[in-house]
Amino acid sequence: MENPLTPEVLADPVELTRVLVDIESVSRNEKAIADCVEQVLRGVPHLTTYRHGNTVMARTDLGRASRVVLAGHLDTVPLNNNFPSTTRGDLMYGCGTSDMKSGVAHALHLAVTLPEPKYDVTYFFYEAEEIESKYNGLTLVAEAHPEWLTADFALLLEPTHGIVEAGCQGTMRSVVTTTGVRAHSARSWHGVNAIHAAAEVLNRLGGYEARRVTIDGCDYREGMNAVRITGGVAGNVVPDHCEVEVNYRFAPDRTPAEAEAHLREVFAGFEVRVTDAAPGAAPGLDAPPAKEFLAAVDAPPIGKLGWTDVARFAAMGIPALNFGPGDPNLAHHPNEHVEISKIRAGAETLHRWLTLP
Amino acid sequence: MENPLTPEVLADPVELTRVLVDIESVSRNEKAIADCVEQVLRGVPHLTTYRHGNTVMARTDLGRASRVVLAGHLDTVPLNNNFPSTTRGDLMYGCGTSDMKSGVAHALHLAVTLPEPKYDVTYFFYEAEEIESKYNGLTLVAEAHPEWLTADFALLLEPTHGIVEAGCQGTMRSVVTTTGVRAHSARSWHGVNAIHAAAEVLNRLGGYEARRVTIDGCDYREGMNAVRITGGVAGNVVPDHCEVEVNYRFAPDRTPAEAEAHLREVFAGFEVRVTDAAPGAAPGLDAPPAKEFLAAVDAPPIGKLGWTDVARFAAMGIPALNFGPGDPNLAHHPNEHVEISKIRAGAETLHRWLTLP
Repeated sequence: MENPLTPEVLADPVELTRVLVDIESVSRNEKAIADCVEQVLRGVPHLTTYRHGNTVMARTDLGRASRVVLAGHLDTVPLNNNFPSTTRGDLMYGCGTSDMKSGVAHALHLAVTLPEPKYDVTYFFYEAEEIESKYNGLTLVAEAHPEWLTADFALLLEPTHGIVEAGCQGTMRSVVTTTGVRAHSARSWHGVNAIHAAAEVLNRLGGYEARRVTIDGCDYREGMNAVRITGGVAGNVVPDHCEVEVNYRFAPDRTPAEAEAHLREVFAGFEVRVTDAAPGAAPGLDAPPAKEFLAAVDAPPIGKLGWTDVARFAAMGIPALNFGPGDPNLAHHPNEHVEISKIRAGAETLHRWLTLP
Repeated sequence: MENPLTPEVLADPVELTRVLVDIESVSRNEKAIADCVEQVLRGVPHLTTYRHGNTVMARTDLGRASRVVLAGHLDTVPLNNNFPSTTRGDLMYGCGTSDMKSGVAHALHLAVTLPEPKYDVTYFFYEAEEIESKYNGLTLVAEAHPEWLTADFALLLEPTHGIVEAGCQGTMRSVVTTTGVRAHSARSWHGVNAIHAAAEVLNRLGGYEARRVTIDGCDYREGMNAVRITGGVAGNVVPDHCEVEVNYRFAPDRTPAEAEAHLREVFAGFEVRVTDAAPGAAPGLDAPPAKEFLAAVDAPPIGKLGWTDVARFAAMGIPALNFGPGDPNLAHHPNEHVEISKIRAGAETLHRWLTLP
């Protein structure tokens, strides 16, 4: 395939977004896009380029006092009648327009066009963010080549609608189980109905008062929700087992251990099994490049409520922020789109940050 | 296959039970057993035999004042490491021992050995009672040859542990639905959680006071139970839909329409959809052959709580009772078994009823 990432395309973040969207790259199918990106980066004299699987990174080595990472994932969720891209007025539609090829375009455009940024920059384009963590390119590189990720600050170009979203909330999934005694439903008094017993679990969820926490000026709003409930043996059997899956989103002032303790407190008296947990990340506004970035953006940061890979950077000791042109509410939607004006505005902000004295 | 239902076997209800159990006849696989039974009945001079599908019936035509039906289904639930039969002491184990080849053995033994019963008797051996109603041999014959079933009284030889169980409760299945608004669970306040909304449905079930009703001296005890609950979209989505399947068992003084009205009253404010309903049957103790049967049994009748085909007989205007040697609590169990002494006692009771002046 001839590489569609021509110099003309690379010079324009909007055109670059469109071309990246039109290289299909559903998770586990990132080879083609990674090949194109790698070829471009290897041709840029001021960069040193590395590849691991379908993750491609390139770095300047200008001896600057600070190093920043600009990161974006190359994969998308499955296509949903939204490929290739289409444009109507200021809106570019298509799978990945918001999440997050517009963000990837920002980083790739700067990588090619900015030979002397104010900080040393590591441009990081990674695979498999949308699927299981074991495939995630950021995780894989952190394990295989941790030195590639050494930095003082990371900017993750996930969709934030042009606002700086700081840190992220943690997330924990757990299963609360109720048990009973099976019986024929025609003689139900011989049994104990485990579904009826789940009423109390749902009552506690319904009455739960979620915390709101302000950290470094950023508001985080927690939530605890049943996301699944299943119970039942057969149409004529009093069921002896019911499971409520609970998703707890917690502010980054709580560790996963603290979140679990709280969850167990809420469901005291019930069997609680934690099935999955990911820590949150503190806002990360203190690093000097972060402060200068915030100065380059004209709106104050807000707390990031969804979980993103900023938590992985935070876990590596690298403060990180989310900033991207896409609307996070459109991510994974069939009518996913991005505002072209937001791509242009974001590119200007990033350029200003990396070039102003 | 040589017919294992030899004269020696037919002469002994216990041996006959064993041989019937050892002819595998899981629902929809009743041809072999129906062939054996049909061949036996056609060889009995005092009977006229008919067949419809794998349902076989035979009748005396002695010009008696009353006609009674002795009915039993030939099929069993699927085998569960309990085939063929085994015997330990007084207990015969195996699929169908209780439900209901011991009952079938009663009827077949009497059909062959009793040339001049006190009433005209219709011996009715039918297919597919354990599965969907559309395959049920009683239903099929009632539609195709209703005259085969003309009678003043029916005795259904389903397991009752040797006690007369009168009538049966009705059963109704319904789905109570709660709805909400989907949202990402990281921003759950944008949504309305339909699973949390189901708490009130479960609270009402948990607090439900079931009726107890006495009809003709028989106690019926109602019950209302969640038998299934399902809700959930994905691990990170506030769900917009939750369904609670409710099984209502109602005493035979209520029609299905009255039962539905009650159900809708209990779940006022929720969407209720009735998916399935079967009427109960009044005790049916008034027909003269029923009275004489009760006199032949040495224990008073009790209300039948489970739903059985007596309700189908009742719907045809034929009062019916349940009476069989098996333990109803063992039906469909892997360790299903029948007490051999109960087979002998039941056979004596039936013989007494059909022969005493």
